[in-house]
Parts: sequence; C-alpha cells; structure tokens
Amino acid sequence: MSAEVLLAHVREVPDFPEPGVLFKDLNPLFADPTAFGAVLDEIAGRWNGQLDLVAGIEARGFIVGAPLAQRLDVGFLPIRKAGKLPGPTRTASYDLEYGTATIEIPADSCADSPRVLLVDDVLATGGTAAAAAGLLAEAGAQVVAFEVLLEIGALGGRTALSGYRVSAVATV
Amino acid sequence: MSAEVLLAHVREVPDFPEPGVLFKDLNPLFADPTAFGAVLDEIAGRWNGQLDLVAGIEARGFIVGAPLAQRLDVGFLPIRKAGKLPGPTRTASYDLEYGTATIEIPADSCADSPRVLLVDDVLATGGTAAAAAGLLAEAGAQVVAFEVLLEIGALGGRTALSGYRVSAVATV
Repeated sequence: MSAEVLLAHVREVPDFPEPGVLFKDLNPLFADPTAFGAVLDEIAGRWNGQLDLVAGIEARGFIVGAPLAQRLDVGFLPIRKAGKLPGPTRTASYDLEYGTATIEIPADSCADSPRVLLVDDVLATGGTAAAAAGLLAEAGAQVVAFEVLLEIGALGGRTALSGYRVSAVATV
Repeated sequence: MSAEVLLAHVREVPDFPEPGVLFKDLNPLFADPTAFGAVLDEIAGRWNGQLDLVAGIEARGFIVGAPLAQRLDVGFLPIRKAGKLPGPTRTASYDLEYGTATIEIPADSCADSPRVLLVDDVLATGGTAAAAAGLLAEAGAQVVAFEVLLEIGALGGRTALSGYRVSAVATV
C-alpha cells in the first residue's frame, strides 16, 4: 500500500546529476504530510519496541530518520560527512566513482551496543550505506537492518549490503 | 521549561570548527527522544493550524524540520546546498567569512504562496538563515517566522533577520 503511495510521489529527472542517470526526486513525498506519514508508519510498524537508535545518512537520510526516530520513541544519530562533527569521532572512508568520501559519527555514540536501524532515502549502489553500516558495527552497534524508501534494484545495492537485512518500502 | 531541557542536552566544544569558536553540539538532544520531543512539541504548539510548510536548512535543519512538519501535519521543504537538486531551481548566494555559499529550492515549491516556517538548529550570525528567508520570500512564500532551537545572542543573528519574526527555544 505504502509502496504505491510512495511511487506516486517520486519525480524522475533524466540526466541528473550527470548524463545517463535517472534521478529519483523524493521531494514530492516530503511535501505531502499524509503520504510521507503513511510511509513512516509502515517502517515504524516493522520495528516498534525493537530499537534503541535510528541512524540517518547525511543529508536526505535525516529527513527520513529524524521523524522515524520520534515515531519509535528512540534517539536519532546523524551519520555526518567529514568535518562536520567536533571530536572525538570515528570515521569510515569508501570509494566513489571518482575519488573517495568519508563519513563520521561521534566516537562514543554506540558504546552501549545499541540496536540501530540505519535509514536513507534511496538505495542505489549501496556504497555509502555499506560504509555507514560498517562504521556503526565497528563502533559497537547491532545493525538490525537498513531501511530505505526507494530501492533501485538494477544498481545492486543489496549485494554491497550482504550480511545486513535490507528493506525497501518500494523497489523500481 | 523546554529551554532548560534543551540546554541540558547541549555539549559545548571549544575551538571547533576553528580556533576561538565555542561549538554548540546538539547531538545529545537528538539522541534523547523525550527531550527532543518536548522541544518539538513546544515549537509545534506555537504554530498549529497556521502553516502550510516547514522549511529546514541543510543539513541539521532537516533533523529539526522533518519531525516538526510531521507533528504539524504539513509538508517539509528541504533548503539544499548548491548542486543537490535537479532543476529547475531557484537559488540565493550569500557571503561567508571567506568566500560565498549558495542554497537552492525547487523553482515551483512556493508557487501557491504557502505560509512557511523556516527552521534550523542554531542561530549564530544569521547569514544562512537570512539568505534562506529571502529565497523563500522571492519564491512566493509567506515566511511567518524563523524558529531555531538555540540562539547565540552575542553573534547578532536577529539583526541579520530584521524584518522576520524570530523565535528561539533557548538563548545563550
């Protein structure tokens, strides 16, 4: 049910951010509080009472993760791009198509082995998500699953995340 | 009441991101769902039924704005850094201490003159907030107020935002 609601609120934009990429714009979903609420309710319903933290990947993962954490009455942990957090931090670097990227969390944010749900808006190749899941696990978290609003199946993100449970509200 | 709750969840970090700056880290607030919920309730209580959109400034403004929009049952509009949004967009540039920065929204996101609450986590000099408020107004929005969790009074952000209503849950 939520999959249809979600897909009705995705705008596809060809050739962004580069030629050949069909960008999935979820801003129409975020602009519709009833539709976005239904999607959040579906995810929350899968995890009620089973989590200690929701972690969201900067920046659109914050839009999903922060209201989801409030619905589930658990804390929200932002996974930041490099240089945004005061120390001490724990970092992970991963390869992009050109170059590398680094993400960070506070060093002590998972010290008490929390059950963490990792979330983002879109699962494409899974590079950032796999780095984030690994970062949380190394920090001491139990990564119970990676939840994403929209999975682009052809890009193989689940392979990059093998070893983790992966759920998507909708898949294209 | 919420001011005390909020201030009890701020971590002050000297010399970040540069020497002489006392950074206000709100991650302890986001990690505590009861405290963060109380702060969101206080803001939501001021605006219930009076808004069409909540707009949050990338990236920490998303952590505040997305759950606030859900509480108020209105849409969420992310104000993005340059290059993140597919077109057409409307942009605003503003001066930083060194250089300039650019923010963007979808060109049509405020076409129907919505009543918009602009939110962010911290009000410091107000440069980004003033640019965001101006961008929303030029796009057609009625900017009803700028709401921030923590205002650093000595940095004069309210002066930069003269002409807009400004509220802070707590001020230091």
